[in-house]
This record gives sequence, structure tokens and C-alpha cells, in this order.
Amino acid sequence: MSSIPNTAIRPRVVIVGCGFGGLEAARALRGSAIDVTVVDKTNHHLFQPLLYQVATAGLSAPAIAAPVRHLFRKQPNVTTLLGEVERIDVAERQVLLQGGDALPYDHLIVAAGATHSYFGRDDWAAFAPGLKTLDDAFEIRRRILLAFEAAERENDPARRAAWLNFVVVGGGPTGVEMAGTLAEIARHTLPGEFRHIDPASAKIILLEGGTRVLQAMPEALSQRAKEQLEKLGVEVRVDARVTAIDATGLTVAGPAPGGDPAATSYTIPSQCIVWGAGVAASPLGRLLAEATGSTTDRAGRLVVEPDLSIPGHPEISVVGDLAAAKSHVPGQEPTPVPGVSPGAKQMGRAAAANVLRRLAGQPSQPFRYRDYGNLATIGRNAAVVDLASPMGPVRFSGYFAWLFWLFAHVYFLIGFRNRLVVLMDWGWAYWSFARYARVVTGIEGAKKQLQE
Amino acid sequence: MSSIPNTAIRPRVVIVGCGFGGLEAARALRGSAIDVTVVDKTNHHLFQPLLYQVATAGLSAPAIAAPVRHLFRKQPNVTTLLGEVERIDVAERQVLLQGGDALPYDHLIVAAGATHSYFGRDDWAAFAPGLKTLDDAFEIRRRILLAFEAAERENDPARRAAWLNFVVVGGGPTGVEMAGTLAEIARHTLPGEFRHIDPASAKIILLEGGTRVLQAMPEALSQRAKEQLEKLGVEVRVDARVTAIDATGLTVAGPAPGGDPAATSYTIPSQCIVWGAGVAASPLGRLLAEATGSTTDRAGRLVVEPDLSIPGHPEISVVGDLAAAKSHVPGQEPTPVPGVSPGAKQMGRAAAANVLRRLAGQPSQPFRYRDYGNLATIGRNAAVVDLASPMGPVRFSGYFAWLFWLFAHVYFLIGFRNRLVVLMDWGWAYWSFARYARVVTGIEGAKKQLQE
Repeated sequence: MSSIPNTAIRPRVVIVGCGFGGLEAARALRGSAIDVTVVDKTNHHLFQPLLYQVATAGLSAPAIAAPVRHLFRKQPNVTTLLGEVERIDVAERQVLLQGGDALPYDHLIVAAGATHSYFGRDDWAAFAPGLKTLDDAFEIRRRILLAFEAAERENDPARRAAWLNFVVVGGGPTGVEMAGTLAEIARHTLPGEFRHIDPASAKIILLEGGTRVLQAMPEALSQRAKEQLEKLGVEVRVDARVTAIDATGLTVAGPAPGGDPAATSYTIPSQCIVWGAGVAASPLGRLLAEATGSTTDRAGRLVVEPDLSIPGHPEISVVGDLAAAKSHVPGQEPTPVPGVSPGAKQMGRAAAANVLRRLAGQPSQPFRYRDYGNLATIGRNAAVVDLASPMGPVRFSGYFAWLFWLFAHVYFLIGFRNRLVVLMDWGWAYWSFARYARVVTGIEGAKKQLQE
Repeated sequence: MSSIPNTAIRPRVVIVGCGFGGLEAARALRGSAIDVTVVDKTNHHLFQPLLYQVATAGLSAPAIAAPVRHLFRKQPNVTTLLGEVERIDVAERQVLLQGGDALPYDHLIVAAGATHSYFGRDDWAAFAPGLKTLDDAFEIRRRILLAFEAAERENDPARRAAWLNFVVVGGGPTGVEMAGTLAEIARHTLPGEFRHIDPASAKIILLEGGTRVLQAMPEALSQRAKEQLEKLGVEVRVDARVTAIDATGLTVAGPAPGGDPAATSYTIPSQCIVWGAGVAASPLGRLLAEATGSTTDRAGRLVVEPDLSIPGHPEISVVGDLAAAKSHVPGQEPTPVPGVSPGAKQMGRAAAANVLRRLAGQPSQPFRYRDYGNLATIGRNAAVVDLASPMGPVRFSGYFAWLFWLFAHVYFLIGFRNRLVVLMDWGWAYWSFARYARVVTGIEGAKKQLQE
């Protein structure tokens, strides 16, 4: 890093977004003679793989969120700003923030991540929140816990049953862990605490539009995941395409399981629907594509060069969920990088390395993704693991997969403090079946839900 | 408790509110042949003495909030309902909830607590939030942390200085601990994390309308508290009457310290004002007074009989901050019960004991408050303690007072789980000066603040 020319004016790198990609990029510029500015629209780096635990009251928010500026307190070349990007002025090379600030850059790293996609049905968002931010997690926690509260107060049997229908849409990792944990709450955490309902009678339904859950996993592990979900008490329905969602519940195409085989659709009454089906790149992707004349893929991700830069703009790199990036292994066809946190972290480091090369007048290098495997948790004692190894894939499921998943996640948590808290919270939750963070706030706004 | 007649229909007790008073009342009815229903408008019992730690990012919300129904899971005669009281039908003896439920009672215990009072200036609430609920604490946390963020982005020196003015109104226990902790954040937690501002340059101003802080304490301890606050970096201004609060700051009557002595008022520009000045009884007090024809005091508290019942309504007891109650010691003049948590807990237990007596056909007993003393924390290593003892009061301040305060509060925290978490959080915060829960959520709504 000492190869950077010691000019009077230090080069300026602006990093937009402090998820896994942005954080790793900024860290990789540590000790360099570069002024780095990290802009994020929240004040915290979020450990998203455990966000479902906040949504299901297993962890408090601070356990998985570290203040961005605290993470950089010992990296004096980093300035942290809380702000939202309004526009990127590619010609003038500056990032314009809402509120009027302009951040000039010599190199820009865009790591703005992804948000939910409702495939053009944004009106569904109000009835089926997704899970990307802490506010999302609080909203889902509120809906889950208030649904049980409302059921306890409800005298009409049909309405009570509707309050106890929990539907998760999408059988990807988020949908699977949400459904598994909901089943755990209904069967292990809440029983004994209600006087008019039996929480264990709640129905947890996981709807997957494709033919199997966890499609990124090998087929055998998908099958194991489905079996483990069913053992936990989740009803898994594949080939289940949702055609409508409103305040009363959702409509699914095709005949209902065990119903009239000639029916073209059926409804599930539910007041608690969690959306885990679609992901779309941050709107910043489209802004940037328009400003640079580059293209985005169907999910709104920017199609980048092998070195993660935007075509024609070597001074702009895109990393993480916002990039439609490929992995380049010499002598092989490039393969798409999966949208997982190791991918974002590796891209962040690679983009930073290319910034250093570029400022040193060296050519940039194509990105190569190292795939160490794939984990998914399902619930108590249940997970599936698919590890890459030189001797071929190592695949296992069940209790040891769950332990492996748990320690891997606690290990990668940012900051020792959080690791300890999370381990303690889980240890306690495991032995007592209790869930620590069953606190509902913002209840005023949710009151209508209970009074309906 | 076995003296209750074993009738076919068990007597029904409804308890409104599950703060300290309601919780203790319900617990005191454990094992009795009574059906108890506890109604609260939140889903958690809040350990309010540590709420300022949530507001100042020292503790996460779940550390001081336990789900109400979890607390009663092993008390089968208690049914927990999440709901807000709309009206109390005294003639029909039923509590009507918003949303339409009616809860019939044979005995009613009202423990609905208190809220902020702006002395008729409710328009101040938007600019100077008070601290009673978790949502209040999140709002104040958001304003504190976002003020530093905004200062870091602000280029205009006057506006930057305004962002770094933190004003606490009211020198009672809440005001004192908020001001002391704000000074700790500015001087110990945040330094080193900003590049454009020095957080330690923040001004923390505590405004008290009376002649001294902590007026419930002996004068010498008030003086010690003031000195300790000043040592922590708080500017304490007594005899400082606030006459206006708006979006730009507040106006104080009289000349500014060190300013023109002839001036009749001065302004303090500030974007972060915390209200700790006034407390008013829950609006339920007025409803109940109207329904029963009884009277309330200036703070809206119901004036109760010696046995805590409402005059003419032996079947309704009022406990905690909603009651203008007196302590009755034989042979002495009755004295007012202070609005502190031991008072609420003792009233809750006393009301429950009178319910049992009444149902057993025995006469009720007047309430007697046992005063064990008074503690107030100020900040790191700083507190004042005034203990009652048979040999006269024991008073001390400083480090040992702080340790005493800390262990007393951790001891009284509801639930072992929370105690452990709180102790760990504090141990960590003490050694590292870090604050664990610096997570701001609901930032969308607060964005305007930053863009102003």
C-alpha cells in the first residue's frame, strides 16, 4: 500500500453503503494514503444473516448491529457520514446527498445492496412485509406477537383461526428460517402463557413458487430441509404461486391441498404474512445506469466489467447485491457470483485492491469468487450445510449442521461484544425455550390491527 | 388466602396496567381462588428506573422489558390481555376495551400510571419529548445520536454549535441522570469517532425551575448532585424557567448567565431537548373520577380512601402514580406517598390484600408506606443515596453511592435473565466506555431533521 504516490492532495474514495461489501472495501483501504468517506443511510452495519432472529424476538437489535463510525474509530483515514444518496454526478465525479452535501471522489465504490421486490405488485408490501432492515424486523416481530395477542382476545372461531395462520412466501433461506422459527415460537416458546388459545395450534405455512425450497442447494439437501421443516411443524407447499395478497389473507393458484382438484385457486386467511420471495437491487442501480449509460439485469443489478467497474468508468466499482458480477477463473467460463455475504465481502476487498492498483498506475485485476459452500438454518437443531472442499462437496444436515451454522455465524459477527451477547442469548434460549426480545414497540400504529 | 369462600363462580379481579403497582397486585393474588385479568396497552412490563439507559444507548430495550404474559406463565389464575381501556362502566362493573371487549369485575384495581405533563403547553411535546415508554426512549436515542451525525455534516459553525447543544428540562431524577449520561456520551463514548467535530465540545445544559436539583432529596445531597454533574461536564442552571420551546430551541426567563443583567429572557438554540419536568396521571384518572364522582388533585391523580379505594366504591382500588394516596401510621398525621416505584409496589400489594379481605368479608386496612430511602444516579461513578434506618438517615454520595445504586437496581430488575444481561452490558460499558445499543431505527421519519 506504500506504492501510492505521496501527492500533496490525497486521493478521495467514496463508498456508498456499509453492508458487507462497503465495510470490507473501507477496511481494505486501511493504512493507505487515501481519504475514504463511507456514506450509509443508517447509522449501523447490520449482520443481516441473523436479522430473522430479531424479527422472531430471539435477539435484540443492538446484538446484530454495530455503529458504522464505531467500527472505523481506529481507522483515521475513514470519515463516516449518515446520509442518503440523491444523485451521482458522473461527469463532475461527485456524490450528491439529500440535504445538499456534495462528496467529490477520485474513485467511487457503490455497495448499496438490495431491497424487496414484489414483482410489480408493490401494493402487497403493506400486507406482507419483507426482511431487509431493522425496521422491517421490528414490523414483522410486531405482527407475529400481536397476532397471538389478537387471537387471545378474539371470540369468533373463524377469525381466531385466521389470526393463528402464519404464512411465509418464498422458500429461500429467509423464508425457510422464518418458517422454522415461527414454528418454534408457536410450539415451544408461547405454550402455557395463553388462557383462551393454544399457541401450538397455530398453522405455519411456507409457500414456494418453484419445485423445492432452498433452490441454491443440491436437491438432496432441499429434500432434507423440507423434512426438517415438517418435523418442526411447518406445512411446506411447493409449486404454490401467490396471485393476490390483501388485508384478509392471500390467494394461491391451483387447487388447495386436499381440496376440490378442479379449483383454479384457493385463499388462506391470514393477518401475518412474511415476504421472502423477491429481491431487487437498490434504486441507486438504475440511477447509476442512467448516469453512465450502462445496463442492468432483470433484478436491477448493474452489469459490471470483470474488475467490477462500470463499462467506460474505471473510476466506479460496484460490489455486493447491486452488482451482476461474474467470477473469473483463468481457463474457465465466467460464472455468476451468488448474492450471499461472502460474495459481497470478497467483492468489497477486490474493488479496494483495484482502487489501490489504479492509483498506483497498475492494471486492475478480474474478480474471482472463492466459494466455501452454503449454509442454511431451519430451526432448533436443524440446518443444512454444503461445503466446498478440494476432495469434493461435503454435505450434511440436522443437529451437527445446525451447530456448524451457529458457530460459523457467531464467528463472523462483527465485534467481540456482539458475539458474546449473541452466544449468551442463544444459550439461554436453547435451554429455556424462551425468547429474549419479545418486546413490541410502536404499538400505537399497530393498534388498528387489533381493533379490526 | 384459603379463607375465600369456595363459590361455584370465582370472584373476578381486573387489573388495569402492568407497571410496578399492577404487577405486584397480580402477584399478590397468586394461589387465590380468584380469576385475575391483567390488561396493559403494551405487551411488556417496563423497568422504568433504567429507561434512561435505553434512551442513552447503554441498554437494549429487551434488557429492561419483560413480556407481561411470560411473567404470569406460572400463575394460572391470571389472564393477560393486550388492550387499551376505553371506559369503565362503574354501574355495570365492567371495563370496556377499545375494540369492543367488556371485562366484568367484582373488584377493579387501576394502576394505569402517569404520563408527561407540559403544563398546558402540549405543543412543546414535539420538540422536547419526555421519557415514559420504550417508544419515548427510542425517540430520544434517535435525537441524541442524529444530532451528533448532523453536526458532523454541518458546515455552518452556528448551526453546528446548535446541533451540539443538548438541553434537559427538569432537575428531578430523570433530568439528572439524562444530563449526566449525555455528558458521558459526549466526553467518553464518542470522541475519536468523528472527523469534523469534537463531540466533547457538546454543551449539556440542565435547566431546573426551582432552586435546586433533586428536590426530594435533602439539601446537602442536592448540592453534591450539582457538583457531581458539573464535574461530569453538565452546566446546571437553577431558577431557570422555560417560557417557550420550538423547532429552533428554547427560551428561558431572566438574564442569561454572564449576559446582560437587564435582559428579561434569553434563548438556547438546540435540536435535542429532553423533557423531564412534569408528570401527570394517566387520562384514565379523569375518566374514573367522572364515572365515580370522585376528585383528582392538580396532577390528575385520584384522591383515594386510606385503604386505596375510591370514596363510595370499595370495589375499586387505585394504586401507583395514578393515586393521590397517603401513608397511615397509627398516631401520626397521614403523609403523602412519593411517586416512586417502591410506593407503587407497596400499594399494589396492599390493594391486593384488601381485595382478599373484602372477599372474605373482613374490613380493609389503611395503607402504610415503608420508606427505605431514596437513590438517584448522576452518571459514571456518581450518585446520591439517602437511606432510612432505625438510627436515622444514612447519606452518602460519589463512587460508593453509585455502586450501591447499581446493585440495588440490578437486584430489583424483573427476571434473572435480564439481570445478567444488564450486568454484562454495564460491565462492558464501564471498562470500554462504549455504549452497546447505539442503533438508530425509524430513521425515515427522522430524515427531515437531518435535512433541515
